[in-house]
Amino acid sequence: MHYAVCGTGMVGRTLAEKLVSLGHEVVIGTRDPEATLARTEPDRFGGPPFAEWHQARPQIRLAPFAEAAALGGTLVNATSGSRSLPALVAAGAENMAGKVLIDVANPLDFSRGMPPGLDPVGDDSLGEQIQRSFPGTRVVKTLNTMNCRVMVDPGRVPGEHNVFVSGDDTEAKKQVTGLLMSFGWPPSAIIDLGDLSTARGVEMLLPLWLRLAGAVGHTDFNFHIQGAHSQA
Amino acid sequence: MHYAVCGTGMVGRTLAEKLVSLGHEVVIGTRDPEATLARTEPDRFGGPPFAEWHQARPQIRLAPFAEAAALGGTLVNATSGSRSLPALVAAGAENMAGKVLIDVANPLDFSRGMPPGLDPVGDDSLGEQIQRSFPGTRVVKTLNTMNCRVMVDPGRVPGEHNVFVSGDDTEAKKQVTGLLMSFGWPPSAIIDLGDLSTARGVEMLLPLWLRLAGAVGHTDFNFHIQGAHSQA
Repeated sequence: MHYAVCGTGMVGRTLAEKLVSLGHEVVIGTRDPEATLARTEPDRFGGPPFAEWHQARPQIRLAPFAEAAALGGTLVNATSGSRSLPALVAAGAENMAGKVLIDVANPLDFSRGMPPGLDPVGDDSLGEQIQRSFPGTRVVKTLNTMNCRVMVDPGRVPGEHNVFVSGDDTEAKKQVTGLLMSFGWPPSAIIDLGDLSTARGVEMLLPLWLRLAGAVGHTDFNFHIQGAHSQA
Repeated sequence: MHYAVCGTGMVGRTLAEKLVSLGHEVVIGTRDPEATLARTEPDRFGGPPFAEWHQARPQIRLAPFAEAAALGGTLVNATSGSRSLPALVAAGAENMAGKVLIDVANPLDFSRGMPPGLDPVGDDSLGEQIQRSFPGTRVVKTLNTMNCRVMVDPGRVPGEHNVFVSGDDTEAKKQVTGLLMSFGWPPSAIIDLGDLSTARGVEMLLPLWLRLAGAVGHTDFNFHIQGAHSQA
């Protein structure tokens, strides 16, 4: 499978590397590859500049959003939430048509300081915004409720914990569920919440996630729905 | 201890009954006791009318909000979220002054149909609204993230799961933590999230909770933060 991962931050890098390790071809999409490679400062979370990371992973191609989306058979949105829609507009609806788009982003709103709020929140979600903007693409929201290292290595958090899947297209969710299993998620850990409007609920986990990270002092934790399988 | 439980629905009744079983005195507050007792239809969730429930529990007094609040040494807000502020205004700031108010309500907004949204959501919470409206009262948000039967009987959900505590007053949180332990919550299950602004995060769990209830087909489940204690 050929994946196009939009976003050059920690989340995009971590997913790209995992996909490569599973034998997939991966292209990372960015607005301007030259500008991305020219950056020398650490990223927002203190990670190395993209070029340094990329040098050690030459098999991962870097391309403008549109070229990446055209190459990818499956798309991953790993851009920061406030930049997701412009990035996908740059990717181009025609390059995304008919494809599955795995949306792992959160609409964090840093405009009013820390901790960030959410925008949209309540009656809408980023996942639904993307689906409405690209009706020909099959959006599946998943993995947005945890640190990216846990996304691709659920064993980092000992014990049972869950990953949620939201989307309007059953076949697309089945494909994404298979990918999650290849990441190491046991089938019993994967909860299909239903249609894409359930993305509102999982995006709204982020404010608590951020406070928990502060309260417990690390990010190797995850949500577990205890009792979800006891009577189901 | 004398508790005043505001709210005559399933949540208020369940908490009142548990408090009585633990040897506390309990008064339930309502707008108009005569009107509450005159209702003959089942409640919103199909439970018996209040009068029928109350007949079997004569040791629980029913009183207008203000009288209940004056009697109670500790207050519990178990009204529906959209009615919480008017109910507490009726209770009267003077009757709540200096007391701990345990807010278990959620600001569910049914005005746009099902599933309900939240109002407020994002940059504010019902818990904070109550605290701002009654600065002389010590608000602690807790227990709002689960079905009321789980609140008072955590063993209904097998395995580890959590209850969150949010509040600006450390002594008040300590008192509420003691109450939670008397309900059967082990100390390791009680997560102090920090100040009352963290109520935003726990109130925002409700949309996912509601979808999960639909997906798993029952309400005997609860959130568990897996890994929260592994490095803390």
